[in-house]
Amino acid sequence: MDIQRIEAAANRLKGHARVTPLLSSPFLDDIAGKRVLVKAECLQHTGSFKYRGARSAVSALSDEQRKNGVIAYSSGNHAQGVALAARQYGASAVIIMPADAPTMKIENTRALGAEVVLYDRATEDRDVIGSKLSDERGLTLIRPYDEPEVIAGQGTCGLEIAAQAAELGVTDADVIVCCGGGGLTSGIALALEAHAPGMRVRPAEPEGFDDVTRSLASGQIERNTGSASGLCDAIVTPQPGNLTFPIMRRLCAQGIVVSDEEAQRAMAHAFARLKLVAEPGGAVALASALFHANQIASDTVICTISGGNVDRSVFLAALDQFGEG
Amino acid sequence: MDIQRIEAAANRLKGHARVTPLLSSPFLDDIAGKRVLVKAECLQHTGSFKYRGARSAVSALSDEQRKNGVIAYSSGNHAQGVALAARQYGASAVIIMPADAPTMKIENTRALGAEVVLYDRATEDRDVIGSKLSDERGLTLIRPYDEPEVIAGQGTCGLEIAAQAAELGVTDADVIVCCGGGGLTSGIALALEAHAPGMRVRPAEPEGFDDVTRSLASGQIERNTGSASGLCDAIVTPQPGNLTFPIMRRLCAQGIVVSDEEAQRAMAHAFARLKLVAEPGGAVALASALFHANQIASDTVICTISGGNVDRSVFLAALDQFGEG
Repeated sequence: MDIQRIEAAANRLKGHARVTPLLSSPFLDDIAGKRVLVKAECLQHTGSFKYRGARSAVSALSDEQRKNGVIAYSSGNHAQGVALAARQYGASAVIIMPADAPTMKIENTRALGAEVVLYDRATEDRDVIGSKLSDERGLTLIRPYDEPEVIAGQGTCGLEIAAQAAELGVTDADVIVCCGGGGLTSGIALALEAHAPGMRVRPAEPEGFDDVTRSLASGQIERNTGSASGLCDAIVTPQPGNLTFPIMRRLCAQGIVVSDEEAQRAMAHAFARLKLVAEPGGAVALASALFHANQIASDTVICTISGGNVDRSVFLAALDQFGEG
Repeated sequence: MDIQRIEAAANRLKGHARVTPLLSSPFLDDIAGKRVLVKAECLQHTGSFKYRGARSAVSALSDEQRKNGVIAYSSGNHAQGVALAARQYGASAVIIMPADAPTMKIENTRALGAEVVLYDRATEDRDVIGSKLSDERGLTLIRPYDEPEVIAGQGTCGLEIAAQAAELGVTDADVIVCCGGGGLTSGIALALEAHAPGMRVRPAEPEGFDDVTRSLASGQIERNTGSASGLCDAIVTPQPGNLTFPIMRRLCAQGIVVSDEEAQRAMAHAFARLKLVAEPGGAVALASALFHANQIASDTVICTISGGNVDRSVFLAALDQFGEG
């Protein structure tokens, strides 16, 4: 993985992925006690950054591969990204999703034309289901993060952050990224290494799923052991990826871990102050900026809102419990 | 009023007002049966397009005028725009607001440093209160729409629509604008007349406050007579402006009128499909595009979401009643 691959992905995504805005609010600055800039990836096509990596990966396939179709495993955001990217190339897509994924994510993935295969997380092995289908149909697997073209696609978000921050005169900042398997985090870290070397990328994770934070601390891949609520479904991966972790170990500073309640509070602030819909997993970086500013030395903090695909009931509950006014 | 004044305002706003994104969703296209592009002005500073006009007007004042301070009447969005623009120039701002304006709007206006004077709409005359304060302190009145520099500022939104639509290859479209006094509508109409002459601007209004639609139909200024819920507080002006109406009469096509329920349904779709928070008055143009497509001949419709300053309870009620999933 290198910056050339990210720049190649950016060329392929030009005119397809959205350049999402870098937003701010004086009210958020007041809470954090520093300047807060928010990269609104919930405004990306399909409601999360995942479209970047999916389109990057599908666009890098051969015509033959696209003709046979693609397959992906996902709780929902990668699913929608792959479904849309495949549809745009006229390729068929099979998405293996847990039956308890958010309803909106399952419905959207189907509506985007993908064949959704649901499995029971407790009793079934998604790899067995996926391998069987892939073998039968010659499908190409699009991994959610441990795939160079996916990391390259997510890295285009970092290219935009570097350019947009520079326009605001910001070259020195902590950049906090909502982190599951590390595709977005490692992609942004590579982009900023090349284009904004004064920035420090830091993963944000929910309590109970802080595998990347612990892995960065110990220097080796650590797994999640406990069971947590899963409110932040978008980023509850078991461990950092084999490709993403070495990049994060080389380039990232210490992770930040937030509670589910802090993620929900951040959702309420994104609603009131940014007019954005954030899903819980997409709000952990903003929660880090707002509620863990004591762990952030820089005067400016940039954070991703990585997705907004939240079921109405979950959003209503967060606003009802933690909103103001 | 002419295009030069809008372009001059754009130069003054450069680096201050946000270039808001033009968003879309295949799900919205399906509902409307045509391509729907959404100009997300809820992402503008202070949560509505009003900052454009306010900053344009304050930046056009003399140093002497700014030293004495400014005054504005507003139910909330113009209030916040003027408060922020004045603060950015170190000018004091007095804002006369109805006591029953949305709580968030009153609190935000205060938090942005303005002196808020509340009045009772039933028993007090805001002009009397405002004139007394202006005379005492030498304040300059920033009108919400019937003011050339305000119209010019709102027109910068139209310059962006023209450029962003052209990038997508769109030159022929109905452009539906949430309309109160007509500042945004007339400003966008002037900008598109010069830069996208294939587009037709059409005001959108809530039932019971369809003064502009009726005025365009009759060819003269008509007033609202009935009393309606006021859910769409941002755009419930009594009649079109003396400056804005002649521009709209010359340039705008027929208005579209939506029910409060349709505005709330549009809010729920903006939440689910665009990840945006729209206030009721800011959702009437999207409601027109989604639910009155039979009144729209063009294959592509562009609509503003003009603001997102909605009290939590109002947003929760709209999602609860009219959301899906």
